[in-house]
Amino acid sequence: MRAARYQGARDFRVEAVEAAEPAAGEVQIKVAYAGICGTDLHIFHGHMDARVSAPQSIGHEMSGTVAAVGEGVTGLAIGQPVTVMPLAPCNDCPACRAGHSHICQNLDFIGIETPGALQELWNVPAHAVVALDAGLSLEHAALIEPLAVACHDVRRARLVAGEFAVVVGGGPIGQLIALVAQATGAQVVLFEPNADRRQVSAELGIEALDPLSLDPVALVEERTGGAGADVVFEVAGVAPTALQSVEFARVRGRIVIVAIHPNPVPMNLHRMFWRELEILGARVYEREDFERAAALLTAGEMPVDTLITEIIPLDRVQQAFERLERADAMKLLVAVAE
Amino acid sequence: MRAARYQGARDFRVEAVEAAEPAAGEVQIKVAYAGICGTDLHIFHGHMDARVSAPQSIGHEMSGTVAAVGEGVTGLAIGQPVTVMPLAPCNDCPACRAGHSHICQNLDFIGIETPGALQELWNVPAHAVVALDAGLSLEHAALIEPLAVACHDVRRARLVAGEFAVVVGGGPIGQLIALVAQATGAQVVLFEPNADRRQVSAELGIEALDPLSLDPVALVEERTGGAGADVVFEVAGVAPTALQSVEFARVRGRIVIVAIHPNPVPMNLHRMFWRELEILGARVYEREDFERAAALLTAGEMPVDTLITEIIPLDRVQQAFERLERADAMKLLVAVAE
Repeated sequence: MRAARYQGARDFRVEAVEAAEPAAGEVQIKVAYAGICGTDLHIFHGHMDARVSAPQSIGHEMSGTVAAVGEGVTGLAIGQPVTVMPLAPCNDCPACRAGHSHICQNLDFIGIETPGALQELWNVPAHAVVALDAGLSLEHAALIEPLAVACHDVRRARLVAGEFAVVVGGGPIGQLIALVAQATGAQVVLFEPNADRRQVSAELGIEALDPLSLDPVALVEERTGGAGADVVFEVAGVAPTALQSVEFARVRGRIVIVAIHPNPVPMNLHRMFWRELEILGARVYEREDFERAAALLTAGEMPVDTLITEIIPLDRVQQAFERLERADAMKLLVAVAE
Repeated sequence: MRAARYQGARDFRVEAVEAAEPAAGEVQIKVAYAGICGTDLHIFHGHMDARVSAPQSIGHEMSGTVAAVGEGVTGLAIGQPVTVMPLAPCNDCPACRAGHSHICQNLDFIGIETPGALQELWNVPAHAVVALDAGLSLEHAALIEPLAVACHDVRRARLVAGEFAVVVGGGPIGQLIALVAQATGAQVVLFEPNADRRQVSAELGIEALDPLSLDPVALVEERTGGAGADVVFEVAGVAPTALQSVEFARVRGRIVIVAIHPNPVPMNLHRMFWRELEILGARVYEREDFERAAALLTAGEMPVDTLITEIIPLDRVQQAFERLERADAMKLLVAVAE
């Protein structure tokens, strides 16, 4: 079979490799599409070599069909459309024992610590496989994983219909959070300085404003009758937006930290105290987030075609990474198996 | 009557002033004891002159008895022991309308924006008066306000019996939080570098450790079987402890910001994200916190005599502030009316 494998910083190659049979408890998936995300781009840049054993296929946003099942796996027919929730918890650490296995203290992330979806036939643990409705296209199904991130973030925020949400940052996850927040019945404003990304928002039906051409905090104050936002999603990942996120929030408002901030950033703890704010970290997803994401896509409620900039053949993976590096695309899907 | 009044930075004077009759809706209290807190010390230093109109009596931790009632006030007999929950919300802002009037956006803090308890006869709005059980000593009753802060912080943390709590900072509020956390059934470790304060903890039955003579994070990891603390109370109010507070917390742990951090401080948002932590601001109290505080003291469950360093006569208020400035006391009570 063909596999696109990370060789080291800035170097992916498509190679012919022998496909392994699925072991006991594993499912072999014929991968249809794999999306490339920000974490994959970090790997491409060589920043995650401590976690990735080169040469290795990576990739964890995907769709496909069951090609074979290992011993002991039941309930999955050959040809069944599926996606993968790429988390392999230890089930033994304090976090797992407390019911938070999605953020297990020894988590293996499938597609990072273990091989990923950028290969034609991919063996994964059966517990990670999520069966899909046959009515959902495999292109859309490849977006379930990032949409599940958005569903998790919105659920972690305890956002309810009628609330006012601010999304700071209009990359793919920010756009998906805005869509899920709107599907939840919230009013949403997204702040994003990049005009191309604001144009994507407009096509998705999201109000996106340039935070550099107006006073974002004053706008939110005005829109909410002087109260402030119920929920703020910090998805930009830069220090100034983290600091500003707290300014948007109403008394007892919630701020969800979605973006990765590699270094400590200044936060206004006085305002946290004064308004009794709540800052919540949110990472990956739980099974119910995957199921909500699949259900939203199956119901056709998410205008996600706009988010798929292009579908790229497997042998052009290297170019796909280089294009994402230039921030010249929203979501690129790789067509993996023929 | 006699009143100790703030004249400007570092200047209190005891003066003879005319006592006003209580207006309609007001209660006149004969003040027995008034405690001096960190906020009062800020006022003494002149840092809150924008909120305090000199000359003015300040003070909002107190106990006393009803001396007279204004028109329309019912249910309070002359001589009834009382304390005051010193919050006067506007009842009209978005925070009040959302049910958070204790942190009203236009809050008047009685004893800061309006005159306080360092005068023999003090008129306050009837809604602020909390009637006390006759079995509670007026010395202890003067601690209800700071104990209500601690009750609020513990409630905001959603701390339950069997959980592990870290208290960072052993001033009066940190000690009271530790006591309330223990009364809630939690295991508590308090970190405090000052040996005198650790000695107070020992007398209160709180385990207090010097964070400079061991690795506090490693200790908490070890005590919790590698999990981390369920709840962390940041009561020290300095940048290094704010940064460290996040390191103590288990996956999905809660960090309560109790201390006032006047300027933004670096926070580790990556760990917030990675462990799905929750940071909660907590300010003042609600009525139920006042009632729990009064009930805990009335039941004799709080060994608070240890916290009262000395009772000072009204004419030595200036010296009391100077002593607190040297951090040479835990809690000083001023004996106000004779």
